[in-house]
Amino acid sequence: MREKLMEMLDSRKEEMIKIRRHLHENPELSFKEDKTAKYIVDFYNDKDVEIETNVGNGHGIIVTIQGGNSGKTIGLRADFDALPITEETDVPFKSKNEGVMHACGHDAHTAYLLVLADCFIQLKDEINGTIKIIHQHAEEVPPGGAKSMMESGKLDDLDAIFGIHVLPLAPAGTVGYHSGYSFNGRTYFKLVIKGKGGHGSSPDKANDSIVAGSYFVTAVQTIVSRRINPMQAGVVTIGSFDGKGTFNVIRDSIEIEGDIRYSNKEVQEVIEQEFHRIAKGIEEMFGVACEVTYTPDYPPLYNDPELTDFVAEVLNDVKDKDIKKIEEFPKMAPSDDFAYFLEKIPGSYFYIGCTPKGVEDPYFNHHPKFDIDEDAILVAAKAVGQVTCSYLEKETK
Amino acid sequence: MREKLMEMLDSRKEEMIKIRRHLHENPELSFKEDKTAKYIVDFYNDKDVEIETNVGNGHGIIVTIQGGNSGKTIGLRADFDALPITEETDVPFKSKNEGVMHACGHDAHTAYLLVLADCFIQLKDEINGTIKIIHQHAEEVPPGGAKSMMESGKLDDLDAIFGIHVLPLAPAGTVGYHSGYSFNGRTYFKLVIKGKGGHGSSPDKANDSIVAGSYFVTAVQTIVSRRINPMQAGVVTIGSFDGKGTFNVIRDSIEIEGDIRYSNKEVQEVIEQEFHRIAKGIEEMFGVACEVTYTPDYPPLYNDPELTDFVAEVLNDVKDKDIKKIEEFPKMAPSDDFAYFLEKIPGSYFYIGCTPKGVEDPYFNHHPKFDIDEDAILVAAKAVGQVTCSYLEKETK
Amino acid sequence: MREKLMEMLDSRKEEMIKIRRHLHENPELSFKEDKTAKYIVDFYNDKDVEIETNVGNGHGIIVTIQGGNSGKTIGLRADFDALPITEETDVPFKSKNEGVMHACGHDAHTAYLLVLADCFIQLKDEINGTIKIIHQHAEEVPPGGAKSMMESGKLDDLDAIFGIHVLPLAPAGTVGYHSGYSFNGRTYFKLVIKGKGGHGSSPDKANDSIVAGSYFVTAVQTIVSRRINPMQAGVVTIGSFDGKGTFNVIRDSIEIEGDIRYSNKEVQEVIEQEFHRIAKGIEEMFGVACEVTYTPDYPPLYNDPELTDFVAEVLNDVKDKDIKKIEEFPKMAPSDDFAYFLEKIPGSYFYIGCTPKGVEDPYFNHHPKFDIDEDAILVAAKAVGQVTCSYLEKETK
Amino acid sequence: MREKLMEMLDSRKEEMIKIRRHLHENPELSFKEDKTAKYIVDFYNDKDVEIETNVGNGHGIIVTIQGGNSGKTIGLRADFDALPITEETDVPFKSKNEGVMHACGHDAHTAYLLVLADCFIQLKDEINGTIKIIHQHAEEVPPGGAKSMMESGKLDDLDAIFGIHVLPLAPAGTVGYHSGYSFNGRTYFKLVIKGKGGHGSSPDKANDSIVAGSYFVTAVQTIVSRRINPMQAGVVTIGSFDGKGTFNVIRDSIEIEGDIRYSNKEVQEVIEQEFHRIAKGIEEMFGVACEVTYTPDYPPLYNDPELTDFVAEVLNDVKDKDIKKIEEFPKMAPSDDFAYFLEKIPGSYFYIGCTPKGVEDPYFNHHPKFDIDEDAILVAAKAVGQVTCSYLEKETK
Repeated sequence: MREKLMEMLDSRKEEMIKIRRHLHENPELSFKEDKTAKYIVDFYNDKDVEIETNVGNGHGIIVTIQGGNSGKTIGLRADFDALPITEETDVPFKSKNEGVMHACGHDAHTAYLLVLADCFIQLKDEINGTIKIIHQHAEEVPPGGAKSMMESGKLDDLDAIFGIHVLPLAPAGTVGYHSGYSFNGRTYFKLVIKGKGGHGSSPDKANDSIVAGSYFVTAVQTIVSRRINPMQAGVVTIGSFDGKGTFNVIRDSIEIEGDIRYSNKEVQEVIEQEFHRIAKGIEEMFGVACEVTYTPDYPPLYNDPELTDFVAEVLNDVKDKDIKKIEEFPKMAPSDDFAYFLEKIPGSYFYIGCTPKGVEDPYFNHHPKFDIDEDAILVAAKAVGQVTCSYLEKETK
Repeated sequence: MREKLMEMLDSRKEEMIKIRRHLHENPELSFKEDKTAKYIVDFYNDKDVEIETNVGNGHGIIVTIQGGNSGKTIGLRADFDALPITEETDVPFKSKNEGVMHACGHDAHTAYLLVLADCFIQLKDEINGTIKIIHQHAEEVPPGGAKSMMESGKLDDLDAIFGIHVLPLAPAGTVGYHSGYSFNGRTYFKLVIKGKGGHGSSPDKANDSIVAGSYFVTAVQTIVSRRINPMQAGVVTIGSFDGKGTFNVIRDSIEIEGDIRYSNKEVQEVIEQEFHRIAKGIEEMFGVACEVTYTPDYPPLYNDPELTDFVAEVLNDVKDKDIKKIEEFPKMAPSDDFAYFLEKIPGSYFYIGCTPKGVEDPYFNHHPKFDIDEDAILVAAKAVGQVTCSYLEKETK
Repeated sequence: MREKLMEMLDSRKEEMIKIRRHLHENPELSFKEDKTAKYIVDFYNDKDVEIETNVGNGHGIIVTIQGGNSGKTIGLRADFDALPITEETDVPFKSKNEGVMHACGHDAHTAYLLVLADCFIQLKDEINGTIKIIHQHAEEVPPGGAKSMMESGKLDDLDAIFGIHVLPLAPAGTVGYHSGYSFNGRTYFKLVIKGKGGHGSSPDKANDSIVAGSYFVTAVQTIVSRRINPMQAGVVTIGSFDGKGTFNVIRDSIEIEGDIRYSNKEVQEVIEQEFHRIAKGIEEMFGVACEVTYTPDYPPLYNDPELTDFVAEVLNDVKDKDIKKIEEFPKMAPSDDFAYFLEKIPGSYFYIGCTPKGVEDPYFNHHPKFDIDEDAILVAAKAVGQVTCSYLEKETK
Repeated sequence: MREKLMEMLDSRKEEMIKIRRHLHENPELSFKEDKTAKYIVDFYNDKDVEIETNVGNGHGIIVTIQGGNSGKTIGLRADFDALPITEETDVPFKSKNEGVMHACGHDAHTAYLLVLADCFIQLKDEINGTIKIIHQHAEEVPPGGAKSMMESGKLDDLDAIFGIHVLPLAPAGTVGYHSGYSFNGRTYFKLVIKGKGGHGSSPDKANDSIVAGSYFVTAVQTIVSRRINPMQAGVVTIGSFDGKGTFNVIRDSIEIEGDIRYSNKEVQEVIEQEFHRIAKGIEEMFGVACEVTYTPDYPPLYNDPELTDFVAEVLNDVKDKDIKKIEEFPKMAPSDDFAYFLEKIPGSYFYIGCTPKGVEDPYFNHHPKFDIDEDAILVAAKAVGQVTCSYLEKETK
């Protein structure tokens, strides 16, 4: 089956590129992917599979490919939402949706997975087990689509899950992997500090919320500098300090908002505990009231070491002109809601090099000029195809 | 002359009240006192005095009363602008100019001084020396009117200057005085801190201006706590910390604005030096750029001790049913641009009690319900009249 | 009687100086004034008065002069302890007690009061009322002698109390006064912050007490800068930050000690409340334990305004070659336990100018080169004598 | 040759243990390893090698084994100093040198390398190239021995260098490796802040060094929290804040000492730059003088990725009953001056598991109860022997 699959993919490379370009030209924002979802569903229209739509809190789609033989159930996920970015590339299939852009490569993810799924559908009699194709909406905006798709219960039967992300860290042909914690987790917070307003010349009659807020900002630095394991990553960024007012009037309240990152659960817990501690301390210290909103969204993404080793080994053993190099990639600072799947199901999220040919210093994901080498789409299809074949074979040996 | 003057004032009490009510009903904002200035000029129309209008940077008016005999030159000042406050009293002569109110008593100041001036004009043959009546515009809004009137050169010949402020710290009949520094000086500042923006997850690629600004706020506390003489007053208030942004984006710059107060020149100098020092320190410390706007406006008001003692003695010796009590008043936290006159000319700015009868806890100046006991207007006229008579007598003895 | 008293004092000027020099040569530390107390007691040995020794927590002495006529009871206090300072003057009667010096003028206080008391004893038949001479020990070291002497109950019958302090703010002949709050109050504090030690390379395994202590120091600045009335005086000084350790070991605990000053009770209360608030805030914020020792010692000294006016008037009316000028003195930054008497008994603590003749920039009290113009001793005796006579007369009119 | 070598090592296991016990019983502090150095030199006494003593700034020893055939030059290093720790184990060969202990395993390092060197000497005719045995003194105390040995020029001809460290992270039989940055670099700093002393009640007359120092401590937190790449490790610990003084006296100066760690050169540079920046900022901000001593000692240790892969592959391919498992070890927080060799010469520093048999939670290096499974000594000898053979073979192929 594996050989047939590779041949089929080889022959459909142009189709994958065409799909990707269509999606690229018609990007839609997270939770508003109406046409994209319809496009995906239409793709499967006349195919012999079970398809579930509107899974989770949006346009989530699950396509179940029941193999001819018994075996494990494996999930393959691609996300399909775009970003609120105005495209600045010169590609002929540039976004027609002003201000929205597939600047993160989800178009490529969806393109390869549609074709790969179709191939599996055609080969399904030979498959040992079940493949669930997960077209996930809304990866870019918390709470994201993954969490709710997982919570739908429709993926509870997965034995393993895999997904890929295109990254311009290497040319097309390179596949990257990272074992253990691989993407940072993330939390949004808001802190409203309420003091008491007053005249600038009489601070003793007021309770200065800007002063309390500033001491909060300085104190919160110690979380990263003194509280977390230096070998681990943690970030506490205050992106907004809203204390605009009149120069000679003491502000009665201010609002701070920020972004927290952490490389693993342990760091996540330390930061959460210390953040609340410091907010409470500011209350005590300055006699202000602190209202804290603390909303962890995507958890740190944990690649199962065994399955990640498995991916690396499988791909290392492959003899394929398109899969040229397998290498360890570093941890990623961003966050991805694939992490929610991995909280429940062992799996691995790996990387497909996509640096455009001839480019030395490529624009990274989320940049208005982000672009990919479209050869990477076939690499993705083949790599995920190989891993799927090997996984289902292995588990039925 | 003194007795005649007192009799004349007694007989014109109702007129003063009428003038005050007219002004109260028709308040005008600082630098926009068109009708008020015209009203004042019209008052002097048919009188035998020299009148200069548009003195300084606005509607400043100087009326020169040349006495019959040679002697010193004395200035008497009353301000006439109103405040951007919506009146909330129930008086029948409530402001007709929505959103503008004589909430600081400048109506009463002008009312007494017009009538007192007229009396002096009538008595001028008996006067030893010259009286300059200073109707000053724009006391409420820096840079104010006093500075420019002083700079006009038209008051360079003053030997002494006096003025009063109505204050509901005591009932009508009480005159207050304070020797030496009596009102705080004031400075406006703006500090723009420019760092470098970036993504919340990568603080090392950015230079966080909110963090730099917060350390500035905490450091600036030491000016008042450690740098100024604890026996003196100083305040550094940050009224605005404009750092509103997006939670997960590091702000490239923020803007801080504030208000500085000081009880005397020494404290003023210390604060100014240390403020710049700390801004410079933040630049060094965080590698940001600090743009500082530092604009002292009204200086600390310094009452000449000798002339203040003189005022207190003269009034203590007066036997008059309306001037009942002379007492030391505390230093005032606010600022007044009478200070600019006192920087150049010895003089004293003193207080006329005006608490409405039967009121225990009166609304203070600048409150939308501020009101005065109109008896205080006559007290003001008599007190300034007495001081003027004694001063001109004394100096010709 | 008044005239006789003044004559007697005039004739005993040299004796006062002799006594002062004897005391100056034999200074003793607070609570250890054995010989000084004996010297004082011996002075009264053969005199017809009641003498009580060891009053309060040390060598306090009360001498009661019962007047011939009924009247009020007045207290006159002089302190007699010296300081742990090595004298650096060149006077012939330089301290013989190495490392101990009458650098605060208590020798002069005691000298004048002994002679004045003796005069009153001789004149006692003419006195209306009772004079209690209070020789107070241990003014320099909290808890001081005044508090315990007051608590002894032996001064409960005082109607008024007076005392003086020599100050080189004016030449001998000048008497200073200040109404209301006049000396600052004072508090000692210690803060032990207990975290958890650890290796310098692993801050997450420890809880850094130096960091917590440093944030405490920066936060505590806001008490003075934002919490107290800017027109009032307050100081929070951290004199000791004991965190000496090994460069690469995280300290488990540190100890901070400091000194707090305040010009009145209101400021005292604000500082105390906020200090505890901030210590509690640091506990919350950093998860450390804070042990606070907070020991107010001398309260702010409050001169009764009526009796202070009385002192100023009496001395202004005096015609005496030695009492040349009466003037208002500024508030004093230091503290004096005379404040404890004034908490219970109305009175006034006033100042005797003592700048050495020909000296422009005199050494201040507590300086190793502090010196006085000995003419001031007679001025003190006369001023206190006059005030006493007038007070007892007034109260019996 | 490889087989012969392994057999020889197998047969000399007891001798290695004996040597290790002898060294363990006779530990000597860094730079004072007189007897240890003599012991080592004596070991080579009658052997046919060139030996150089007193290399570098202490007892460094280089033994050059010239192979029979031409080839590369390889260095093998073992350190031999002990720690100022009082041993708390119960081993029969416990330290006889009270207060000094081989608590870091350098006794084992030296034991295996002596025997391995002797084997190589016996086999030298078969060797392609040259082996330099580096017995390094003073690893534990900066500036250490490695730097000066490297600077001696006597190791300039090395083509590669290897060394091992025993670590109780795994049982004997496990060899660990880590590619790239593997041990943190380290810097010692001292900061003297000089302000101006004064009385606690008059902060304006002084310049408070404790306050300046505390703001330094809070500001320095931002280096780790905002300046370094969150994916990298950095630590700035202030181990000492020496500001002990008198509660009511403002300190004129304080002294801060601390320890800085960094996982790579880039972080090292960022921390150094920002540290100086903040010290300069404190100077500007508070008008104090900052004297900074900043002494980087051991750099971050960088294992050449190619040679580390080589080590892992060689040992993975080995069939030997004693070398049971090869695995990646995590980065180490401590520092090691082997880093100095690796700054100039490509090489790899790898790990020999040594957890005592049956112990689950072993005492770590530097603990007074640190102990090793002595089987690890033979593992070390064999692993380094294998790597050496393979390296010299490879390079002559």
